[in-house]
Amino acid sequence: MGVVVQKYGGSSVADAEGIKRVAQRIVDAKKAGNQVVVVVSAMGDTTDELIDLAEQVSPLPPGREMDMLLTAGERISMALLAMAVGNLGHEARSFTGSQAGVITDAAHGKAKIIDVTPGRIRTALDEGAIAIVAGFQGVSQTSKDITTLGRGGSDTTAVALAAALRADVCEIYSDVDGVFTADPRIVPAARKRDRISYDEMLEMAACGAKILHLRCVEYARRYDMPIHVRSSFSLKDGTWITDQRDGDTMEQAIIAGVAHDRSEAKITVVGVPDKVGEAARIFEALADAQINIDMIVQNVSAADTNLTDISFTLPHADGQAAMSALTRIQETVGFASLQYDDQIGKVSLIGAGMRSHPGVTAKFFTSLAEAGINISMISTSEIRISVVVDEAQVDDAVAATHHAFDLDADDVEAVVYGGTGR
Amino acid sequence: MGVVVQKYGGSSVADAEGIKRVAQRIVDAKKAGNQVVVVVSAMGDTTDELIDLAEQVSPLPPGREMDMLLTAGERISMALLAMAVGNLGHEARSFTGSQAGVITDAAHGKAKIIDVTPGRIRTALDEGAIAIVAGFQGVSQTSKDITTLGRGGSDTTAVALAAALRADVCEIYSDVDGVFTADPRIVPAARKRDRISYDEMLEMAACGAKILHLRCVEYARRYDMPIHVRSSFSLKDGTWITDQRDGDTMEQAIIAGVAHDRSEAKITVVGVPDKVGEAARIFEALADAQINIDMIVQNVSAADTNLTDISFTLPHADGQAAMSALTRIQETVGFASLQYDDQIGKVSLIGAGMRSHPGVTAKFFTSLAEAGINISMISTSEIRISVVVDEAQVDDAVAATHHAFDLDADDVEAVVYGGTGR
Repeated sequence: MGVVVQKYGGSSVADAEGIKRVAQRIVDAKKAGNQVVVVVSAMGDTTDELIDLAEQVSPLPPGREMDMLLTAGERISMALLAMAVGNLGHEARSFTGSQAGVITDAAHGKAKIIDVTPGRIRTALDEGAIAIVAGFQGVSQTSKDITTLGRGGSDTTAVALAAALRADVCEIYSDVDGVFTADPRIVPAARKRDRISYDEMLEMAACGAKILHLRCVEYARRYDMPIHVRSSFSLKDGTWITDQRDGDTMEQAIIAGVAHDRSEAKITVVGVPDKVGEAARIFEALADAQINIDMIVQNVSAADTNLTDISFTLPHADGQAAMSALTRIQETVGFASLQYDDQIGKVSLIGAGMRSHPGVTAKFFTSLAEAGINISMISTSEIRISVVVDEAQVDDAVAATHHAFDLDADDVEAVVYGGTGR
Repeated sequence: MGVVVQKYGGSSVADAEGIKRVAQRIVDAKKAGNQVVVVVSAMGDTTDELIDLAEQVSPLPPGREMDMLLTAGERISMALLAMAVGNLGHEARSFTGSQAGVITDAAHGKAKIIDVTPGRIRTALDEGAIAIVAGFQGVSQTSKDITTLGRGGSDTTAVALAAALRADVCEIYSDVDGVFTADPRIVPAARKRDRISYDEMLEMAACGAKILHLRCVEYARRYDMPIHVRSSFSLKDGTWITDQRDGDTMEQAIIAGVAHDRSEAKITVVGVPDKVGEAARIFEALADAQINIDMIVQNVSAADTNLTDISFTLPHADGQAAMSALTRIQETVGFASLQYDDQIGKVSLIGAGMRSHPGVTAKFFTSLAEAGINISMISTSEIRISVVVDEAQVDDAVAATHHAFDLDADDVEAVVYGGTGR
């Protein structure tokens, strides 16, 4: 009997009706002959409400206590879900992250999984029960304190448990049908992908596609755990994220999709002396301030001044801290000034096929130029090209790119949806 | 340095303001030179809201999952309280019942404490931190599942932890000033007791005084742990519950107070054959149905019929189940009929002194008679006399009794409040 791990997000269990619907779905998976493990997030807005309560009693709550507080959210949803499954005549047992054996480091609020020892889950499955596990949480190996995994934590819990239990598949349920070639709200003609590789999904996630968090995909790739992203509101197949490449079932597209991200800001350090170690000092200062940098661009220095400009992007939320950290080193590094711009957006073209297809970059830039969009930064990887554009032009850039690469559903619908029997 | 255990109920931590006020109180206790352990209930109506959610997903939720659900309530309040204490510059660490070492049996929803192993609490105290512990919950010794202690659970947690930590005192905070000679809403002249013995408090609790639950007082008596019942809204001393009897500090009253209880109903089994074993069969049937019986009265049988009537009181909530259980044995026992009356109230006079003072019973019954109140059942213990009266006459009965035994504050205020310096 195979093990299936299913993960349901907060929007799927936002109220009693949602919980009952998910319970039915779980029971269906069990009836289909699987051992079923379910990872669940907190109901709807519970986490935000708890954060709001915390802010009312303390401006800077300790991480240990914040984790204790927030983990109440999944405790509620998982117990209710177990009850709802029980009401359908199947035994379900809920387990906290700690009980499920999710062992982490002690970094409260952003703990990393060190080990998964799902002995109690295995016992529950062997005894014929459905196991319902709290996502997003674990227990510190050293302090035995409760930890949370931070953003994308519930997805990561699901993949980690699936890997530890050698599950057949990790199903991630949300309110969307799968991974699309672009955000359907921006590009109505965007198509759902039937399959996508780990690498492509990693780039999509890193570039703003919100459907899966980066670390969850990284975890799945490391353990070669197939992820099936699908909607909890429909029975249709979603998108399979795997490493399998099979001519019969994989699409032959060279472009996996177009991702965009409005969550970043751009800082330019103007007039940096072009000598060894200056860039290192700048990024050391940012690292010390725990700031995650995304794209970095350094131009060649002007011959007459021997000064260069360094631009980088970072999350909006870190903007203030980054500006402060840089201001503190302005004198020692000797740069001229700082520019901050949060009216930017990043548009990325992703596809494992692009490395073997020359001309992708040219076509990308041409499509943007024809749409009247100016590019202010460029960065590339083996399977991705990202550009930074004016925030107001993000939608146009995504649509133009999607169309230029023949991703629009009108062109290819017959190929993609035809004959699959889904 | 002495250990003080403080317990705060849900009404004391109902919102952010309440939590901050309690946090200040905790810090004051710490500053006064104590090691402080705090037991906290769920915020305000949280438990009721969680029960409501459970009912929406399942008509009969499994006990294990109900406990998992409800324990989220204290998790939220204890984490918020720890944050609020932290915000006042003192380290506080919150602990679940399981982390605090509250080991119970596996009876979900009404678990009994088997052992308390507060190693982590002791460590936190030794490291200078304030420990905040979730009341009402523990972990099953056998299944390792989360349990709840049922009614009065948080008070019991506090006393059990105080005993295990050999605390100086267990302070139980609520929204009332202490233990009164009668419910002040019924008898405005009721006086707060400065001290009361465990035995008297046990009888008060058993007879409807809601300030402390029976099992909490039983636990305190067993371990001789002084309880100080007081208000979280005032700095005044409340009522000390101890076994110490000292002529200088204890009041000399023979009557501790008048308690009343409207939560019971009365069932009369009419026409029971008066032969050996009939009563046993009746109460066995009730025990099998898990029904708790309070008072029992059996009259001598009528000489001509050799039939007797047996009346007993029980919680309203168990009435339906009891009537069903008795109906099932009507034929085998051969009684004539059943009468059910939920329009009753119990009024109890409690005082360790009454055993050595003749005439208490006579004065009690006379005062009721003079107030025109009919008595339908009587039961007594060494330190208590209880009567069942018509529910509509409960208030009058309490007031008349309180007055007859000179408990009204007007008579004794100078004695009770004078010269104590509080």
